Amino acid sequence: MNDKLRILVWNEGVHEANNEPSHIGDIYPDGIHGAIAAGLRSYYPEAEITTAVLATDDEHGLDEEVLAETDVLLWWGHIAHHEVSDAVVERVHRHVLGGMGLIVLHSGHFAKVFTKLLGTSCSLAWRNDGERELVWTVKPSHPIAEGVDSPIVIPEQEMYGELFDIPDPDDLIFISSFAGGEVFRSGVTFTRGKGRIFYFSPGDQEYPVYHHPQIQRVLANGVKWAAQPGLHRAAPEVTNPSRNWFDQP
Amino acid sequence: MNDKLRILVWNEGVHEANNEPSHIGDIYPDGIHGAIAAGLRSYYPEAEITTAVLATDDEHGLDEEVLAETDVLLWWGHIAHHEVSDAVVERVHRHVLGGMGLIVLHSGHFAKVFTKLLGTSCSLAWRNDGERELVWTVKPSHPIAEGVDSPIVIPEQEMYGELFDIPDPDDLIFISSFAGGEVFRSGVTFTRGKGRIFYFSPGDQEYPVYHHPQIQRVLANGVKWAAQPGLHRAAPEVTNPSRNWFDQP
Amino acid sequence: MNDKLRILVWNEGVHEANNEPSHIGDIYPDGIHGAIAAGLRSYYPEAEITTAVLATDDEHGLDEEVLAETDVLLWWGHIAHHEVSDAVVERVHRHVLGGMGLIVLHSGHFAKVFTKLLGTSCSLAWRNDGERELVWTVKPSHPIAEGVDSPIVIPEQEMYGELFDIPDPDDLIFISSFAGGEVFRSGVTFTRGKGRIFYFSPGDQEYPVYHHPQIQRVLANGVKWAAQPGLHRAAPEVTNPSRNWFDQP
Amino acid sequence: MNDKLRILVWNEGVHEANNEPSHIGDIYPDGIHGAIAAGLRSYYPEAEITTAVLATDDEHGLDEEVLAETDVLLWWGHIAHHEVSDAVVERVHRHVLGGMGLIVLHSGHFAKVFTKLLGTSCSLAWRNDGERELVWTVKPSHPIAEGVDSPIVIPEQEMYGELFDIPDPDDLIFISSFAGGEVFRSGVTFTRGKGRIFYFSPGDQEYPVYHHPQIQRVLANGVKWAAQPGLHRAAPEVTNPSRNWFDQP
Repeated sequence: MNDKLRILVWNEGVHEANNEPSHIGDIYPDGIHGAIAAGLRSYYPEAEITTAVLATDDEHGLDEEVLAETDVLLWWGHIAHHEVSDAVVERVHRHVLGGMGLIVLHSGHFAKVFTKLLGTSCSLAWRNDGERELVWTVKPSHPIAEGVDSPIVIPEQEMYGELFDIPDPDDLIFISSFAGGEVFRSGVTFTRGKGRIFYFSPGDQEYPVYHHPQIQRVLANGVKWAAQPGLHRAAPEVTNPSRNWFDQP
Repeated sequence: MNDKLRILVWNEGVHEANNEPSHIGDIYPDGIHGAIAAGLRSYYPEAEITTAVLATDDEHGLDEEVLAETDVLLWWGHIAHHEVSDAVVERVHRHVLGGMGLIVLHSGHFAKVFTKLLGTSCSLAWRNDGERELVWTVKPSHPIAEGVDSPIVIPEQEMYGELFDIPDPDDLIFISSFAGGEVFRSGVTFTRGKGRIFYFSPGDQEYPVYHHPQIQRVLANGVKWAAQPGLHRAAPEVTNPSRNWFDQP
Repeated sequence: MNDKLRILVWNEGVHEANNEPSHIGDIYPDGIHGAIAAGLRSYYPEAEITTAVLATDDEHGLDEEVLAETDVLLWWGHIAHHEVSDAVVERVHRHVLGGMGLIVLHSGHFAKVFTKLLGTSCSLAWRNDGERELVWTVKPSHPIAEGVDSPIVIPEQEMYGELFDIPDPDDLIFISSFAGGEVFRSGVTFTRGKGRIFYFSPGDQEYPVYHHPQIQRVLANGVKWAAQPGLHRAAPEVTNPSRNWFDQP
Repeated sequence: MNDKLRILVWNEGVHEANNEPSHIGDIYPDGIHGAIAAGLRSYYPEAEITTAVLATDDEHGLDEEVLAETDVLLWWGHIAHHEVSDAVVERVHRHVLGGMGLIVLHSGHFAKVFTKLLGTSCSLAWRNDGERELVWTVKPSHPIAEGVDSPIVIPEQEMYGELFDIPDPDDLIFISSFAGGEVFRSGVTFTRGKGRIFYFSPGDQEYPVYHHPQIQRVLANGVKWAAQPGLHRAAPEVTNPSRNWFDQP
């Protein structure tokens, strides 16, 4: 089943285009999206895995036809959230409600579509000091935790700390601690409409986090969990049924 | 404590202004908001309970000063959701994240501020056929269920049925069934930011539901639960703390 | 993957042995467990699907070796809960915490292992009056709801009604209404330790519910969701790690 | 209201009796229960606050009459869980289902009544190395978080770390990190039957944690949240209502 998944890795791609930080080309020669896609290919060699960036086209590579053919969309953004057009945000939102999986990564917590889906500010505490991050599993029965070490040790990362202003998640799978003592709900799921959403915080542009085998495993698990390939893609709508409509043959 | 609560009952007030349905003046001579406010006064005789409608002023009676002085806002709307200005919606949303309680009633499921807070379509099934509604308590330990009969019997109501497209609530307190067999999660809570939200579905403009003593009890409990009168009203914000900031005296 | 699942359908088998009700042999000639197993075989033709009843042996067919080789255990019981030995209850409990899937059916709400896993009385309201049950989906994004009609119409069933004294479930998937107006949280999931638990209420011994194609679909989905075939079966245990143990190679 | 609360602080009292550790008399001259009770008295000066220990009497000070007159029971235990009689465990369990509040502290995670209410092993990782604990608020809208600093800084504590084998809590309010990098869900709520349960982990016998003003604040908030003084104390029970019973006057 999973080998036929249609996965789209979206990255704003602005850090790469600006060569900022200057070593980004060293750690991500194919872009952050390229590294994420490579990790997923190692798990699902026959899946259709494509990538797109903000500058792809007027629709940022996220037009109606593309989304209709996408089972799971991964989203990485940071400094260009405001450049994503509202029309694209509305479209992605609608597809999530209709059943498209969405995996939001790291600074994507401020992506317009994420705050629109969650309804909160999604604000947090942050500090870029190259701190060790430990990612602890707290829900081992969840499919996204399958085969994942606890803790995952990430030698250097940007710190993301509480208060993370999100609604109570459906499932809290991972909690991170940082060398400075802060904690963060780093792996959380939500459902909105028919769609499944997974937010996973590790992955700053300054550190080679997406090459970490355990991080790749989490993302592969996340894609498998979020995908609903056979589902008719349609957001819930108002209905006005007559009495006993369910008895009609 | 609760006698000092500052409660604002907001109603679009359009059905009343239009005398539609024609008997609305008979069942709600002081408007839907008037009936709700009267019910709350019987529970909290010393509270500051005020009302406002869409036509109150340019801000619909919901300007910055008013919201800053409101512990809990109750919201009834139906045919005029689109007439609520986006600026007011943004303001109410910000106050909820900052800790203002919000109680959304019946057809308020489609209020702009509710869908903005929840992130889903909030669509549902409906049928106006004067069906008996039974409201069953499923979380008796919740403060909103305190002293409430299970079931509450409402002789005639509009049917609201599943699928109700909302996120998983923090707490599911009431489930309704209707004479036609449909069910509905009729009493649910959410938290967003520092704010507490209660959605309660009974209360159509055609039926005298807000005069029902048990419905009044639920709303009184809801107000008490949602209020945080001592809280500094400020939505969560991004911070960038230095290491060990918490050790500073 | 799913064709290799190891599924055990357990039924106390006492109604069948006693021929009570007298038509049970007509609706369930191979026992309730036989009907459930047949339904699962139609979905997973290559799975290892076995059955056991209370009288199978001293261990009720649930010895250590059997459970160790079981991915998902389905449990139907009613009038003989007290005859299940405490040793077997402890063993099943331990296997669930270690990752074995458990699907508890209908009057299994009072099975010793279910109340032990949940910690509550699991009491409810009931009435055997052959009422129509409607099973409504309220979480369409859940794997157990995949492809399931909403509502499922069951022409005649025993009524189970709220208050169902269970902890808040991880996921509420189905809510039922009955002709008499009662409602019931009829499809709920829990996790305990590493194990996944699904409770599904339709299925009284007096009515041929397990032949209903939609009910069979729900059970097939439940088995697939609850199974973790690759997981090392071990319940969580206390550990006393030294500092920085996670840095050891 | 809260000044009339009836609060019972229960402590096994074995560490104190054994003078183990040898400095326990210095940090807790009135016992751990005495310190907890003193903290609560500063918040609720007119409440009836009593204490009991394992050796109080044959019922450990927890007979039927006492529990019937208790709104909230706080529980501290560690090395003598097995000495608590099963009859007392059953009684406390029944009172919780009937609506008595229960606050379980620190090593009380292994109290018989706690594992019975939760259904899991409640196992965890631990290390007694005098590590700094930081207690972070992750649900600021919860009554138990009212007025609490985030983080609470505890200079020295025993480390409790994940995996904490508990069911998904109703609300996750606090997450702790420790100097060694481990994290722990240190403040969680559950409901069982009509009862409200709060588990809060800080408070080892070796460190003067219960004198910490912020810890006292959390416990005071917890008591207020868990108490239901007006509730009829009766656990949910099976009922067998006739059709339309709710229409009877």
